Amino acid sequence: MSFLDRIRECAQFRPADYLPVHVDGQPVGLIRPDDAASLREFPQAFAVDAGGVRLAAGVPAPADRTKLVNAALRVLAERKQLLGWRDEPYPVAADDGRAVLLHMDRAAVPRFGIRASGVHLNGYVRRGGEVLMWVGRRSLDKHTAPGKLDQIVAGGRSAGLSVRETLHKEGMEEAAIPEALAGQARPTGAILYCTQREEGLRRDVLYIYDLELPPEFIPENHDGEIAEFQLWPIGRVLEAVRDTDDFKFNCALVVIDFLIRHGYLDPDDADYPSIVAGLRFDPTFRPTPRDPAGGRPDV
Amino acid sequence: MSFLDRIRECAQFRPADYLPVHVDGQPVGLIRPDDAASLREFPQAFAVDAGGVRLAAGVPAPADRTKLVNAALRVLAERKQLLGWRDEPYPVAADDGRAVLLHMDRAAVPRFGIRASGVHLNGYVRRGGEVLMWVGRRSLDKHTAPGKLDQIVAGGRSAGLSVRETLHKEGMEEAAIPEALAGQARPTGAILYCTQREEGLRRDVLYIYDLELPPEFIPENHDGEIAEFQLWPIGRVLEAVRDTDDFKFNCALVVIDFLIRHGYLDPDDADYPSIVAGLRFDPTFRPTPRDPAGGRPDV
Repeated sequence: MSFLDRIRECAQFRPADYLPVHVDGQPVGLIRPDDAASLREFPQAFAVDAGGVRLAAGVPAPADRTKLVNAALRVLAERKQLLGWRDEPYPVAADDGRAVLLHMDRAAVPRFGIRASGVHLNGYVRRGGEVLMWVGRRSLDKHTAPGKLDQIVAGGRSAGLSVRETLHKEGMEEAAIPEALAGQARPTGAILYCTQREEGLRRDVLYIYDLELPPEFIPENHDGEIAEFQLWPIGRVLEAVRDTDDFKFNCALVVIDFLIRHGYLDPDDADYPSIVAGLRFDPTFRPTPRDPAGGRPDV
Repeated sequence: MSFLDRIRECAQFRPADYLPVHVDGQPVGLIRPDDAASLREFPQAFAVDAGGVRLAAGVPAPADRTKLVNAALRVLAERKQLLGWRDEPYPVAADDGRAVLLHMDRAAVPRFGIRASGVHLNGYVRRGGEVLMWVGRRSLDKHTAPGKLDQIVAGGRSAGLSVRETLHKEGMEEAAIPEALAGQARPTGAILYCTQREEGLRRDVLYIYDLELPPEFIPENHDGEIAEFQLWPIGRVLEAVRDTDDFKFNCALVVIDFLIRHGYLDPDDADYPSIVAGLRFDPTFRPTPRDPAGGRPDV
């Protein structure tokens, strides 16, 4: 087991296994052919052919597209052919653009390989010369990754919320971090990955914050998503990520990023460049229009 | 001008413009066809055909390959067809391996698009609530980027030196940082890029360290590479990187990485994911053998 195993776990993607998903001629996602075929019974919402899936083809208004697509998805959810309905609208946009073309319930986002974003907070404490990190254990009734280890705060970013707003909202719900304390959290970067999971293709940007917490602060979960919090010496966190798969797949990468930034990994380890590159590895990511000349190779 | 302009400056690479360079059947670099053609006069050192260049073809011993190749390169250097001879041997290895196949003088490394590595140190000072960063101005007689701004310490990694040893050696030569103080520097990650420059294709991994310096420490250059050091408020550093090209191309990326890790960039800026991904963007990078399943797409 090694840090690279954690990164490999977040890089399970073979381009040839997917068909493109378009809205209004713009690429927004990737879908497996068998999932695409299962959408043929909803021709108003999904135009399916050998070239891929078009969402709400011919419908110009984003609100109308949202209604059509989510009506069909609700049918799948009622039949248990789509699990984990959330009533959380996520924005669907072109890979290289910013205009929201429609909203889709979070439960369906991986099925269509839509890019999503989330916010993860590393909550740590300094005691003498030692660093300790708050670790959450996910509730056993969570839809994804029940019982796995997690950051003190982590949450998906719903439509209409900024990154900072998501941090404050989730900080209060998941760990009872007061507004003023959450306001001290420092943005420190992001990780990117593209990986096939049971629920579909996860193409995520996770925005990362660090927050040094006062030793007397004790997190309390208010939304039932975390079963318990524990304060671990950083060495124990490092070993759990390196030697086990106890952390949720993407939370492991957030920990590795923290360990690198705080100097716990050795640059003379021959794996170091692969690890740092692997934390921001998504071959489908298209940078914003003011783009590196080369851009990503087509996949 | 923007942070993305700095990143674009380090992503000037079109795969179709290059031929592969091999040693003993292993890919080690990329070369432009006109540069490849100019090597035909040294058939013992370089086997040139439409498929690319093979270094020291048929020669099994690394030391013998090194002799053959560098003898030819010295002829080019004497004729001023290769500038900046350094007498610094750099290791040449397969993209996805670690065995050193030969050594090549640093001056020729970009001509053959060989991967290289370096170490850059962010030297900063806290004064009250304020952060200031030491900035070096490169000597006007430097071969590359004369007069440009640089980190307090930055240097290429020669054959046989570890990352940490390179930091200590360059720290003493470039800024008179004593061993004990340099020992406090914290490794914080790496940047990767692949970009065409006047000297050739730069495919570099730069290992990054942060060092909080005592306010009374004043750097002194001992090797003539830095004309002067200045201590700038971090806001001035940010503006110089964002709004000008005063920093050397790769030093700008090291500053942007520092600014991100220390919370000076806003994750709600729509460019944020492109910037963080762009700091580790090399489409030719092959991770180590324990590899993400997808790996990089072929280019």
